[in-house]
Amino acid sequence: MAGGEDQRISNLGSARMEAFSDGVFAVAITLLVLEISVPEDSQDDLLRALLDQWPSYLAYIVSFATVGAVWLGHSAMTNFVDHVDELFLRLNLLLLLLVAFLPFPTRLLAESIADDTGGRVASTFYGLTLLAVVGLLSALWRYARHENLVDAHNTGKELSVLTRRLTPGLTFYAVMILLGLVMPVLAVLGYLAIAVFYLAPIHHLRAKRVGRRR
Amino acid sequence: MAGGEDQRISNLGSARMEAFSDGVFAVAITLLVLEISVPEDSQDDLLRALLDQWPSYLAYIVSFATVGAVWLGHSAMTNFVDHVDELFLRLNLLLLLLVAFLPFPTRLLAESIADDTGGRVASTFYGLTLLAVVGLLSALWRYARHENLVDAHNTGKELSVLTRRLTPGLTFYAVMILLGLVMPVLAVLGYLAIAVFYLAPIHHLRAKRVGRRR
Amino acid sequence: MAGGEDQRISNLGSARMEAFSDGVFAVAITLLVLEISVPEDSQDDLLRALLDQWPSYLAYIVSFATVGAVWLGHSAMTNFVDHVDELFLRLNLLLLLLVAFLPFPTRLLAESIADDTGGRVASTFYGLTLLAVVGLLSALWRYARHENLVDAHNTGKELSVLTRRLTPGLTFYAVMILLGLVMPVLAVLGYLAIAVFYLAPIHHLRAKRVGRRR
Amino acid sequence: MAGGEDQRISNLGSARMEAFSDGVFAVAITLLVLEISVPEDSQDDLLRALLDQWPSYLAYIVSFATVGAVWLGHSAMTNFVDHVDELFLRLNLLLLLLVAFLPFPTRLLAESIADDTGGRVASTFYGLTLLAVVGLLSALWRYARHENLVDAHNTGKELSVLTRRLTPGLTFYAVMILLGLVMPVLAVLGYLAIAVFYLAPIHHLRAKRVGRRR
Repeated sequence: MAGGEDQRISNLGSARMEAFSDGVFAVAITLLVLEISVPEDSQDDLLRALLDQWPSYLAYIVSFATVGAVWLGHSAMTNFVDHVDELFLRLNLLLLLLVAFLPFPTRLLAESIADDTGGRVASTFYGLTLLAVVGLLSALWRYARHENLVDAHNTGKELSVLTRRLTPGLTFYAVMILLGLVMPVLAVLGYLAIAVFYLAPIHHLRAKRVGRRR
Repeated sequence: MAGGEDQRISNLGSARMEAFSDGVFAVAITLLVLEISVPEDSQDDLLRALLDQWPSYLAYIVSFATVGAVWLGHSAMTNFVDHVDELFLRLNLLLLLLVAFLPFPTRLLAESIADDTGGRVASTFYGLTLLAVVGLLSALWRYARHENLVDAHNTGKELSVLTRRLTPGLTFYAVMILLGLVMPVLAVLGYLAIAVFYLAPIHHLRAKRVGRRR
Repeated sequence: MAGGEDQRISNLGSARMEAFSDGVFAVAITLLVLEISVPEDSQDDLLRALLDQWPSYLAYIVSFATVGAVWLGHSAMTNFVDHVDELFLRLNLLLLLLVAFLPFPTRLLAESIADDTGGRVASTFYGLTLLAVVGLLSALWRYARHENLVDAHNTGKELSVLTRRLTPGLTFYAVMILLGLVMPVLAVLGYLAIAVFYLAPIHHLRAKRVGRRR
Repeated sequence: MAGGEDQRISNLGSARMEAFSDGVFAVAITLLVLEISVPEDSQDDLLRALLDQWPSYLAYIVSFATVGAVWLGHSAMTNFVDHVDELFLRLNLLLLLLVAFLPFPTRLLAESIADDTGGRVASTFYGLTLLAVVGLLSALWRYARHENLVDAHNTGKELSVLTRRLTPGLTFYAVMILLGLVMPVLAVLGYLAIAVFYLAPIHHLRAKRVGRRR
């Protein structure tokens, strides 16, 4: 079998892969809300019952922010990618498998974070899932550059900026996972911090401020 | 870091943002139905049990109408927006976080509106979420105009018409939230009224009638 | 306010409306499966328990076929529609509200069809929802023709073929709803028959056979 | 009725069919996670409870891999298909009905695989659903080739490569279903193996290695 036919078959362009990925990202991010359950038998003090559910809101926000950041990174990446090959499509499916799985550790975290032992297990499990998600996003980008799937018109400078953005603090995640073995709530706040950090358009704002001064 | 590379990276165009937003809007609006539970143990009088569930239908309709109106406003807005910047994308994610969250207060409202104290808490919580959603939509549009993300070919008149449409009665929402502290059901009907008001193509009909007379 | 600006604002083209509608259709049709619950405590005879759940499978198939037929009709219609106006968008949202609602009467039907009184109530409620869905699809098409939203290049013959296809047997639905008051299961089979009838490409096959003979 | 008008009406192009199919694939694949339930009352040993849930993770991975492989095959196929006719659209809807149904046998498998009799029933039911899904995908491709829906610019060689890829080992599935009557867990591992086999870009890698040697 020659490479040509196979390439023809596998050459989806990235359009349909993007449409399918956006679909999975959109469904996964919206399913997160299902983990927040309505407090039962709390006619007397619904407000108190709602406030007691803070782990659910925290877990929702952290997971939403992380999926949002990963979607932004994924969009930026495919914006640079010229075409995709068979392995890229498979790695992308693996990324989606993990993103679609996230609602489960999110629910687990929401229900167990306030427990003693349970909180540690749930936080570790949650952190490992996040680490796998961002690690795979990073691997996708490395693969795309290595296999020359990236549009040749991009300058090296642009690419290295994107590389920096798509290499989320894997080390930071690892530290937080270890911290979660002792102080689970703090680790979750750390996961939130890193997602917000990647979402925050700090560089952008600085660049714009510089732009205006000129 | 110069602004150029960063701009290139963040320049998604609005196409993929629209696709992802439409996905989240579509999933969130369709998940609303899951809050309506099938009445149990009601073989004797299923009709009565179905009628007793009126808060579920009301909550479904109000939330659907609101998300529908917000989606229409979002579509009209991105129709005018030429390109998006990094901060616009983040504000849009924040809007989606709130829209995707809406099924939770909707379920809460459906289960608690008929209670005495619970109804007040649920109605207030629901109203605050709606206020945050429409407030953010309005903020997105203000930001787009302020940062010149809007296509230059639009006349000032067109823009001010859209501005009027994207500035939903925040004051009216605030009044309804206060009213909900006393009469929760009435407040919910108020939320329905405002959504229907923004959905109703009143101006359009008038304009068309004028057009035909010519 | 002149009509021009307003028209400009409301002129979404039909692209984004189609994308959003497809999203709602796709989510609603896929959520139907959630009504099929896994039988509990049936280690001894899981096969029997699975077979006893026939109402769930029947309800799933009827609802899936109906939403599928409505989606096909919606696609064919928007294929002919040139542009959409404000009222068309609102009628479309109303159609989506009913389509997104369908998983609820489907679940209700699955759980109550085998009951005596409950079956009649559930079957009637289900039938009324289906009638509303196909009635609105038909109304959308009438409105589009009446307001000249349809592409002028279509011949009258093409349009009348589509009109015939988009006017599902409202009378047949009405008869089935009445029948459901006495024999609910038979009515549901009737709903299946009508969906399959609109899905079945009978005319197409005949036309093709004719085409081949030439 | 002449064939022309009917063809005009049914000629959706494949764009909207692809968008709708991608939506159903994306929702179905993401709903799979809902079958994984959070272990209750396991504060003492959450880790153990999580590990005891291995059937849920296995079922999730097998179903995700299968839907992913089917989506890839579907994408490759529609990439080659020039236009679609009425019957193709209906067969496609039937494929989507089965794909959207998959979360149910997946949940059933997860909850029953560890049981004695139940495991056999669940594994058989699951296998039959997978067989129906891949059988229909294969039938769609055969139909497209038979009715000349395929773009004429494709060489016979390309087509036969794709045919090989879209003819998943129906025999292998049949064998696994029989095996599942005796050893359900092994059969599930077999389903995983076949999905991974179709996902694995083996030919691609070999082709590329050859390409580099030149």
